[in-house]
Amino acid sequence: MGESFGRYRLVDDREFMPYIDECNIACGFHAGDPVVIEQTIRNAIEYKLKIGAHPSFPDLQGFGRRNMNIPATDLESMIRFQIAGIKGVTESFGYRLNHVKAHGALYNMAMTDESMAKAIVKAVLSFGDQIILFAPHHSAQAKVAHEMGLHVRYEAFIDRLYHKDLRLVSRHIAGALITDPSIAVAQVESIVSNQKVISFENQACEIKANTLCIHGDNPAAMEILKALKSQSGN
Amino acid sequence: MGESFGRYRLVDDREFMPYIDECNIACGFHAGDPVVIEQTIRNAIEYKLKIGAHPSFPDLQGFGRRNMNIPATDLESMIRFQIAGIKGVTESFGYRLNHVKAHGALYNMAMTDESMAKAIVKAVLSFGDQIILFAPHHSAQAKVAHEMGLHVRYEAFIDRLYHKDLRLVSRHIAGALITDPSIAVAQVESIVSNQKVISFENQACEIKANTLCIHGDNPAAMEILKALKSQSGN
Amino acid sequence: MGESFGRYRLVDDREFMPYIDECNIACGFHAGDPVVIEQTIRNAIEYKLKIGAHPSFPDLQGFGRRNMNIPATDLESMIRFQIAGIKGVTESFGYRLNHVKAHGALYNMAMTDESMAKAIVKAVLSFGDQIILFAPHHSAQAKVAHEMGLHVRYEAFIDRLYHKDLRLVSRHIAGALITDPSIAVAQVESIVSNQKVISFENQACEIKANTLCIHGDNPAAMEILKALKSQSGN
Amino acid sequence: MGESFGRYRLVDDREFMPYIDECNIACGFHAGDPVVIEQTIRNAIEYKLKIGAHPSFPDLQGFGRRNMNIPATDLESMIRFQIAGIKGVTESFGYRLNHVKAHGALYNMAMTDESMAKAIVKAVLSFGDQIILFAPHHSAQAKVAHEMGLHVRYEAFIDRLYHKDLRLVSRHIAGALITDPSIAVAQVESIVSNQKVISFENQACEIKANTLCIHGDNPAAMEILKALKSQSGN
Repeated sequence: MGESFGRYRLVDDREFMPYIDECNIACGFHAGDPVVIEQTIRNAIEYKLKIGAHPSFPDLQGFGRRNMNIPATDLESMIRFQIAGIKGVTESFGYRLNHVKAHGALYNMAMTDESMAKAIVKAVLSFGDQIILFAPHHSAQAKVAHEMGLHVRYEAFIDRLYHKDLRLVSRHIAGALITDPSIAVAQVESIVSNQKVISFENQACEIKANTLCIHGDNPAAMEILKALKSQSGN
Repeated sequence: MGESFGRYRLVDDREFMPYIDECNIACGFHAGDPVVIEQTIRNAIEYKLKIGAHPSFPDLQGFGRRNMNIPATDLESMIRFQIAGIKGVTESFGYRLNHVKAHGALYNMAMTDESMAKAIVKAVLSFGDQIILFAPHHSAQAKVAHEMGLHVRYEAFIDRLYHKDLRLVSRHIAGALITDPSIAVAQVESIVSNQKVISFENQACEIKANTLCIHGDNPAAMEILKALKSQSGN
Repeated sequence: MGESFGRYRLVDDREFMPYIDECNIACGFHAGDPVVIEQTIRNAIEYKLKIGAHPSFPDLQGFGRRNMNIPATDLESMIRFQIAGIKGVTESFGYRLNHVKAHGALYNMAMTDESMAKAIVKAVLSFGDQIILFAPHHSAQAKVAHEMGLHVRYEAFIDRLYHKDLRLVSRHIAGALITDPSIAVAQVESIVSNQKVISFENQACEIKANTLCIHGDNPAAMEILKALKSQSGN
Repeated sequence: MGESFGRYRLVDDREFMPYIDECNIACGFHAGDPVVIEQTIRNAIEYKLKIGAHPSFPDLQGFGRRNMNIPATDLESMIRFQIAGIKGVTESFGYRLNHVKAHGALYNMAMTDESMAKAIVKAVLSFGDQIILFAPHHSAQAKVAHEMGLHVRYEAFIDRLYHKDLRLVSRHIAGALITDPSIAVAQVESIVSNQKVISFENQACEIKANTLCIHGDNPAAMEILKALKSQSGN
């Protein structure tokens, strides 16, 4: 959420808000500007969503989806700074920051890279132990968070295809982003009911999730959210 | 302070720190990146300085010194976001934000532009009434702050030439930035002892100051600070 | 054209191309990145459009639509650099740059500001006298171009409301951007047949135009273009 | 050269110009803005230097020295656009672009990455076969250039330590940047007289160089250039 920038509108975040409980708000590094970010925070408060910061690599042109090689100490400073911005604006409206979730290439690289995972965890912990980290099950981020005493919620994707080791299939591969609502609903049911996901390699893989994520810039996001809602009978 | 960026070093802020009590830290809009900003905050804490946020126009190429025409509501969001970043990082190290001071063209335009002054004051007030605004005596910023219940400290410049209406002489005019320590010392003495400053138009003008400011990127800054220290007998 | 950026798509320029003869391509300062710009140039060549560079203020966040105060010599360098980028890429595909048209706030400020107009004209002329300037009738740009021997084509807007002195009505005012095709068609007919435009102040004002411009980011652009085409019987 | 940006001055390029024959000018992606770039081109013309474009990753904050993962087709567009800017401004002053040399992490990654090397070579070739590529001996860039008919000059560094496979020692390792003039002079003599360089692993490695490069931001650059000049008896 909050991934528009200046003249550029990505999606109308407000449309999604009735369908979700938590949101991750861009911090201005891969997307978002102060006006967009503030409006998104105001909307999230109106819809009683839990607010998370969504820090990323400093790469607006690449939308934070290009791997970058940044020293871990620099990365920690960058993430701390991004969290600070979202946390401060949220608090200025009398609300609190609930969680942090890394974005894009940063999230993917920190699946397996422990030094990057540590940079993320340390940045979050510097704001106290009340802020939760959203991270994938079986990830370096989750492991390091446990070791350092940071509370984690396991996150699974509604609309991304998984490899058998729970890495996400690259967006360069067709089908990596799920846009068919029936496939998305099946993936959610499998994750929630059986703690399994069917991987790209066509294997049922164990996965644990306390929170489910959908991408705001998925063109089928609304359709998927509506299909999930009608399915769950809410 | 904190006005370096990536590979670019502006000055060594640490050299100045023994000579000052308060500092204004760039927020990444006209200068500063998360690594530089964080290091500057750590240094300021080490030297027991009071920490201020130094928000500006979004103009790295122009160092925030070019007038920009930005709607007041957008401006308020930009300033709130910048304050949030510095405040959050400072608090993550167990310290608190003391004040806010606008930078460059934003500071100058808000001397007389009430809607801009209001955007600044509202942004600061959204973080509660404990944060002080540094603003010039006889400015729209000071006036609006008083009206809206925000505590102001009047600031005067050690190293900038004044017009008789207390606007700063444009940097495009020779002598606008004072680099001769003896002139700077004389200006400070006149402000502190007589509440007067000798203007560009060669008139003694009334000025009130509770805090004195010098520019970190003034090439003579260290020399001036040493001259002031030896003068004051500290 | 070419006003997308990274993940952000503004419009599908290809849709417009069958309806127009000339296009202005963003240079990366207010919009456009090298990938978008190159693709737009390739498309324009495919559709046999005349290619123009569309230089602007360095303000991606504000889409070049915020006034900025930039010294004329700096401005000239900025415009020269932007023209060079579009010209070079166009020539690398075996085509030539046809014209230059300033964007947004730069275009509007240079309506009346002669030093800015001169910066634009000098930048264009530094590439020889074969490149045309698109500028409004009765503007400082047109006047300076005539004086300095630069060929001008007068441009009028299909989809912007005019003041009686031919300044554009600010986008902050409702109706400033024309989105009703019938109004746009009427404005075009009046300009082409009678050399008049009905101003915001409801006066018929003299205007001269050799080229007509529509904004790619006008949500009604396609509808207007189709209405114009059906009207003109082409 | 041309690696200053806005308020930030890196070095005074003019000091170096009497000591060199060719220069590489930043294109605004890792450093340089239009004002700095234009002034550097004017200076280079005054000192009769051959002018090269110095394209890089889009990473001002990291000065183009951080590895980035960018698709080869995007990279080719980025490099073409950067070359176009320098070429166009140079030609607007009646001079011609002599060569292209990739910068920083792009240069290092393209040592061994053939798809990146190909992106660079294709971008240069799109401007015709008169522009030379500066690339290291035994590099993927040199190999691909030969295959595609692009003229190459082999480049060796005066002030960087080499691995035995001619990769540059990472700047994170002490001594990677040579700042002792006597060591630099010895390296140059060895390269020029014996086509050998003593590697980090303390082996004499074969190297071929038609052009020697020193980094403008090496704090000892002037001292090294003077030592080389006095050594060579010029």
